[in-house]
Amino acid sequence: LHELVITRDHIRSIAQMHDEEVELILRAYQERYQELAQDDCVAYISIFHNHGRLAGASISHPHSQMIAIPVVPPEVWNSLRGSEKFFAKKQRCVHCVMLVYEAKTKERVIWENDEYMMLAPFASRTAFEMRIFPKRHQAHFEKISLEERRALAHAFRIALGKIFRGLGNPDYNFFLHTAPGKNQARHKHYHWHFEIVPKTAIWAGFEISTGIEISTIKPETAAAFLRKVTIEP
Amino acid sequence: LHELVITRDHIRSIAQMHDEEVELILRAYQERYQELAQDDCVAYISIFHNHGRLAGASISHPHSQMIAIPVVPPEVWNSLRGSEKFFAKKQRCVHCVMLVYEAKTKERVIWENDEYMMLAPFASRTAFEMRIFPKRHQAHFEKISLEERRALAHAFRIALGKIFRGLGNPDYNFFLHTAPGKNQARHKHYHWHFEIVPKTAIWAGFEISTGIEISTIKPETAAAFLRKVTIEP
Repeated sequence: LHELVITRDHIRSIAQMHDEEVELILRAYQERYQELAQDDCVAYISIFHNHGRLAGASISHPHSQMIAIPVVPPEVWNSLRGSEKFFAKKQRCVHCVMLVYEAKTKERVIWENDEYMMLAPFASRTAFEMRIFPKRHQAHFEKISLEERRALAHAFRIALGKIFRGLGNPDYNFFLHTAPGKNQARHKHYHWHFEIVPKTAIWAGFEISTGIEISTIKPETAAAFLRKVTIEP
Repeated sequence: LHELVITRDHIRSIAQMHDEEVELILRAYQERYQELAQDDCVAYISIFHNHGRLAGASISHPHSQMIAIPVVPPEVWNSLRGSEKFFAKKQRCVHCVMLVYEAKTKERVIWENDEYMMLAPFASRTAFEMRIFPKRHQAHFEKISLEERRALAHAFRIALGKIFRGLGNPDYNFFLHTAPGKNQARHKHYHWHFEIVPKTAIWAGFEISTGIEISTIKPETAAAFLRKVTIEP
């Protein structure tokens, strides 16, 4: 099942919207997720957004995509399995532990408020990669409350605004990683989050053949730079 | 350790060279591989070639790259581990078994001679992906004989020529997968090969977030098309 979430405005990207408009997009994600998850054939729902040609956007009108597939995909399995192993060993969520650590060191924190934390990940795949985590432990994105959705819309606008203003509107992809809908109890250790990946480099022969990605900037440097980019509250 | 193999001609890509010129490039790969492998810190040597901007080539002069790294990279481990498991179970090389099967069905065979077979892989990652396998079981590329190198040069020119003529000179990456130099006996089950990946699509949000690649053409259809593209012998 493949659906498009199309914004009304042909020109403005999410970075240029008001919080209320971003919240509408997130509402579409959430409501369509809940609907698609009803289908017995659906094992995972991928929500993603391609901005710009280098990021694979084939049309310029801003849009997001939701693809519901009958398998849990390998990248999501890797993330789930890592979280599961950590929980089995420590009885704590690996992401919660990480958020506490990052809040203490502050080096890789780009922005935060009471509900969300925006980080340059310790092992960033690309330059200026960002992740948005809810501070409250929650496995399933589709269960966020209206307040949490409003706060997320604000965080999203700030995150994409920092990329837009700070890096000169580069192409980027963002996507959701969340616990799959089936076996709800099994994945309660997981912690949903959005990943934003600016297209600052091309996957070439070395990356394809080895699976090793080369980033040309430290996450601490990227976070320091993005922290300083101011966005209207 | 990072080395560049730079061809003398500024204009012509490998597809437009004579067999003797291609053989010189392969000789450079082989001799530099043997040299780099002497270093105790080297666990794997990645040999790859980026053709065109979309494939990540930052300069237009044709060149290949060799990067020697202190770890065996994840993509290579996956390939090695699959081959190792199959060998433990069946006491045969998985690639040898595959080559016999492909030669029988012929559906995915693009070209072959006595020494090499060119295939559109059953699980192609991208449209028009190709692999070149030696028919004789051999774990280590760097051990090929002069005759085998000459035959490989010919196969390479045919493969890249088919892409150049048949698909209108698209951007592409090619790279080697070969058994790592250390623990030679341990990897004798492996079967080196080159993979050629035309840049026919961009990795976007879905691919990055799931690890699932979408190809828009069946390998059987791609192979049938490429079989018909004629290249001067």
